[in-house]
Amino acid sequence: MILATVTGNFWATKKCESLRGQIFLEVSFDGRKAVAADLVGAGIGDRVLVTTGSAARAADPGLPCDAAIVAILDEKT
Amino acid sequence: MILATVTGNFWATKKCESLRGQIFLEVSFDGRKAVAADLVGAGIGDRVLVTTGSAARAADPGLPCDAAIVAILDEKT
Amino acid sequence: MILATVTGNFWATKKCESLRGQIFLEVSFDGRKAVAADLVGAGIGDRVLVTTGSAARAADPGLPCDAAIVAILDEKT
Amino acid sequence: MILATVTGNFWATKKCESLRGQIFLEVSFDGRKAVAADLVGAGIGDRVLVTTGSAARAADPGLPCDAAIVAILDEKT
Amino acid sequence: MILATVTGNFWATKKCESLRGQIFLEVSFDGRKAVAADLVGAGIGDRVLVTTGSAARAADPGLPCDAAIVAILDEKT
Repeated sequence: MILATVTGNFWATKKCESLRGQIFLEVSFDGRKAVAADLVGAGIGDRVLVTTGSAARAADPGLPCDAAIVAILDEKT
Repeated sequence: MILATVTGNFWATKKCESLRGQIFLEVSFDGRKAVAADLVGAGIGDRVLVTTGSAARAADPGLPCDAAIVAILDEKT
Repeated sequence: MILATVTGNFWATKKCESLRGQIFLEVSFDGRKAVAADLVGAGIGDRVLVTTGSAARAADPGLPCDAAIVAILDEKT
Repeated sequence: MILATVTGNFWATKKCESLRGQIFLEVSFDGRKAVAADLVGAGIGDRVLVTTGSAARAADPGLPCDAAIVAILDEKT
Repeated sequence: MILATVTGNFWATKKCESLRGQIFLEVSFDGRKAVAADLVGAGIGDRVLVTTGSAARAADPGLPCDAAIVAILDEKT
């Protein structure tokens, strides 16, 4: 999995029916941006763990999604 | 998923039988080009969300396709 | 899927039994070379559409293959 | 599979229920960092073999994980 | 699939039970190194075809492996 930072929201009115009801967030890592399904309630600025590929559909095989936020890193104190 | 821009059409008379009836579009991102199945009725110039890998076949497991346009971004106003 | 050009043949006498009877071709794209199963009868010099990952096995799940030529681009005239 | 070095721990209190009970470690390879499920009891500094993609879920298909440490390299003496 | 050269052996005493009995080899391509399951009896110096992703498990779905050597190229004479 990759470590990324949540950097934005993603809005799309026109989308596959199977994506409705799922929140997606923009994540950034290594100077690149991607969009991932949020499975843990992350917010902008959070450092998150993103799982990619078929693993992103482990909870819902019918979701046409290839990236999912599965954990929020604990802040180092 | 990756954010891309639709930059062209794709025409192929000679193709796998299982690809017939499916529209494919050329998409560009990070200076690269790829071809994706269009599941939402996108047009040239649209900013779209492209899902890759087996997720592109979530709706049709028999389609030999590794990229699909699953959403069109709302224009920022 | 990626757009590639067929640049060569691939010969291997010693191979997995499950690969026998399947034609493989060398394809080039973005300065790289790969080998893909030919599902459409492509020839050297053809511009082709290559699907990767598990999609390459959509027609034959038992084939240990991660890339397949699934269409030949129409020539622009 | 890729060869990597274990370089850190990974702590996340807020995560998918399906990830609970699984240890994850930070691994480094080719100047990049990733997070992988530890299936063999690796420790920081170990040279390990990391399997990626759906292979990381071979033992547990429901785990939303795309990388797993599956072996520790023997030290060369 | 990618063309690679076998460049070394891989030894690991501590590994997942499901990997026991399978030979793994180090392969090199494009200046990178990886480790692949050997399904054809390849040796150091052989030019081989490596299949990646879930295709590497086509013969054994339970193997936590994401790369497999599936053919040895015929020498050009």
